[in-house]
Amino acid sequence: MDKILATIITIGDELLIGQTIDTNSAWMAKELNEIGVWVLRRVAVGDNWDEIWKTLDEESQHAQIILITGGLGPTADDITKPLLCEYFGGKLVVDEGALQNVKNIFKRLNRPMIERNLKQAEVPDVCTVIPNRRGTAPGMWFEKNGKIYVSMPGVPHEMKGMMIDYILPKLPEYYKMPFILHRTLLTAGVGESFLAEMIQDLESSLPAYMKLAYLPNFGMVRLRLTVTGLDKQALENELEETFLKLQGLVKEYMVTNTDETLETIVGRLLHSKKMTMGTAESCTGGFVAHLITSVPGSSKYYKGSIISYSNEIKKEILNVQQDVLDTVGAVSEETVIQMVKGAVKTLNVDYAVATSGIMGPDGGTPEKPVGTVWIAAGNKDQVTAEKFSFRFDRSRNIDLTATYALNMIRKFILEH
Amino acid sequence: MDKILATIITIGDELLIGQTIDTNSAWMAKELNEIGVWVLRRVAVGDNWDEIWKTLDEESQHAQIILITGGLGPTADDITKPLLCEYFGGKLVVDEGALQNVKNIFKRLNRPMIERNLKQAEVPDVCTVIPNRRGTAPGMWFEKNGKIYVSMPGVPHEMKGMMIDYILPKLPEYYKMPFILHRTLLTAGVGESFLAEMIQDLESSLPAYMKLAYLPNFGMVRLRLTVTGLDKQALENELEETFLKLQGLVKEYMVTNTDETLETIVGRLLHSKKMTMGTAESCTGGFVAHLITSVPGSSKYYKGSIISYSNEIKKEILNVQQDVLDTVGAVSEETVIQMVKGAVKTLNVDYAVATSGIMGPDGGTPEKPVGTVWIAAGNKDQVTAEKFSFRFDRSRNIDLTATYALNMIRKFILEH
Repeated sequence: MDKILATIITIGDELLIGQTIDTNSAWMAKELNEIGVWVLRRVAVGDNWDEIWKTLDEESQHAQIILITGGLGPTADDITKPLLCEYFGGKLVVDEGALQNVKNIFKRLNRPMIERNLKQAEVPDVCTVIPNRRGTAPGMWFEKNGKIYVSMPGVPHEMKGMMIDYILPKLPEYYKMPFILHRTLLTAGVGESFLAEMIQDLESSLPAYMKLAYLPNFGMVRLRLTVTGLDKQALENELEETFLKLQGLVKEYMVTNTDETLETIVGRLLHSKKMTMGTAESCTGGFVAHLITSVPGSSKYYKGSIISYSNEIKKEILNVQQDVLDTVGAVSEETVIQMVKGAVKTLNVDYAVATSGIMGPDGGTPEKPVGTVWIAAGNKDQVTAEKFSFRFDRSRNIDLTATYALNMIRKFILEH
Repeated sequence: MDKILATIITIGDELLIGQTIDTNSAWMAKELNEIGVWVLRRVAVGDNWDEIWKTLDEESQHAQIILITGGLGPTADDITKPLLCEYFGGKLVVDEGALQNVKNIFKRLNRPMIERNLKQAEVPDVCTVIPNRRGTAPGMWFEKNGKIYVSMPGVPHEMKGMMIDYILPKLPEYYKMPFILHRTLLTAGVGESFLAEMIQDLESSLPAYMKLAYLPNFGMVRLRLTVTGLDKQALENELEETFLKLQGLVKEYMVTNTDETLETIVGRLLHSKKMTMGTAESCTGGFVAHLITSVPGSSKYYKGSIISYSNEIKKEILNVQQDVLDTVGAVSEETVIQMVKGAVKTLNVDYAVATSGIMGPDGGTPEKPVGTVWIAAGNKDQVTAEKFSFRFDRSRNIDLTATYALNMIRKFILEH
């Protein structure tokens, strides 16, 4: 069956010189999938009239729906609005609703308004205006030759507001949407190629409308089954059946059979056990705590952390013994075990996880090169510790350490 | 003068269903700019033979250099290598260097090797092989009709290794590269449209080869001047002169005249003063600490943090008074001031910054709605505190609070 295809065009030089990482497209793609729209391509172009024009022409050959973000601000480098006005053959007129919105925002902020701000309320007379609850620039919806073109601001929360309030509810009125369903499981401790061997019979027997993908990240591999079609009930049944077979084949390496983050899984485990946890972080410097507290409601089970970047804090607050630091050093099994014990006691929590390592680029020695990491997880009675050797760059070493720390505390909570 | 133009093509369904955020392209674009290559477009396509083929055709119309990442793994959804082999009219042969690399990696990991792994060493006989120091899949360099096509793995640190070791040094051998120079400054406390008014005379007088961009983010606005040309010395002088004028026009709002993060600026300030700092985080849950410790060498001035997600920790470790928590509550001026004082003492640091707020989606009340945040910064003698009302979603509230906390401690350190 035919898919409803979309292209996402993001506009702005900042995307082409590496100043900004595009997080909008991933969010949009996920939401579009939910309503049955398949994103075929994503294209980023600069603040360049000819390139944007040519890209609009090209992408309308690829897709039925063209979603555009960026270039709607009040300054000279923002050319999307006049360009779209000319592209669709309209002229700019003031939209009363958008004007009132701009006025309200400036009134609320108690800031004076200037001519330039009022211009934000101008829109091409050939579009339908999409209200912006979260900012001054209105969105625009155009239709031409059976294709839909939507222009939104590049500011993430403004774009998200328009997608949720207007665009995602509106698109299904135009197309008979198929269902796109995904099931994902996460494995740890096994390489991509070994997984492929384990599941190759299943993989080669999949029907054309079912697709298996391997997503390696941070030393773990996600497996994703995707199915597309019109009969939702039949698709769900078939996906469930195949997904169960897949789980059976990889069960000894499976961490979870949901497409969730480790911090969400840890949170649910703690919540269901009515237990609490804390962290004692050296080398991850608060990143484990940040991941855990990114989950809404985490204050119910997460009490806090001692970030002991200095040895003084390891000693004074976490009670790591001076002679341990003197003999085996801060990056050692003994230290992370004492950090866990100290955190359980000082933070008054049921479980704790601790990290200590050398993230780089400096600080490595022949015995403990950059990337050497000790992680421990435990409760007041028992602590397990493990050594890792990552040897990547600082940012990736921090990411990896946090991921393995979350997986270690997950396993400990499950087993204790 | 003519720019050397590149397109970045990223391959993988995960980029089109929102499972993965593309951080590779931003990094690549930044590095390419450094050597004088302008990234004209970035295109993401799925694991789909026809789409990849068509995209290669199209993009070679736009650019001289086509950089491709992804789809080189050992599993069935990885189709980039056979496709490129057919596209450039070659046949797959084993590359001895790549084979040895695969064998070495498996030996080092002490894992058994299977047929599928050996296949990683096969490459089209019409390409130049790019060694992969950090993984099993070799990169491939093709030339056709005067265009360069390079294929790399999608795994960020493998891609980065190939770019640094091979591709970035090699490209300037093929083209006379222009210089692309940027200067960026950061402002706070002023909207994009007001900035535009303040600098409109300068902006309208810029020559065609100099470009000004506005980059609003987290309530702050970056201004970036970019200049392109062949005479490096003349460009540098002119850029410097215009940048000085720009600084003069916006000086009352300027946070920094470098393209650096706030955490880098705070780090340099502390380093130059030979002072230390710590953090006491409630609502940001470790994110401020994470940003500060992302900076290499931060252990020289950053000693640690008490993440007091629970009131118990605020009381027990940071000495926030019970009656303050009982009367005005944890999200209050008094609490964050006491958190700063407690952190300065407990962590034995010169400066501390503290955050407490309601990040959402739950926990808001009519008096303190979601987004209400108190931040304080100080030393042992003096503490300043400020209230913010963000009212966005959890993730953005955390980002914003951390940004404002860093800016507040930056100002406090500067003035004390």
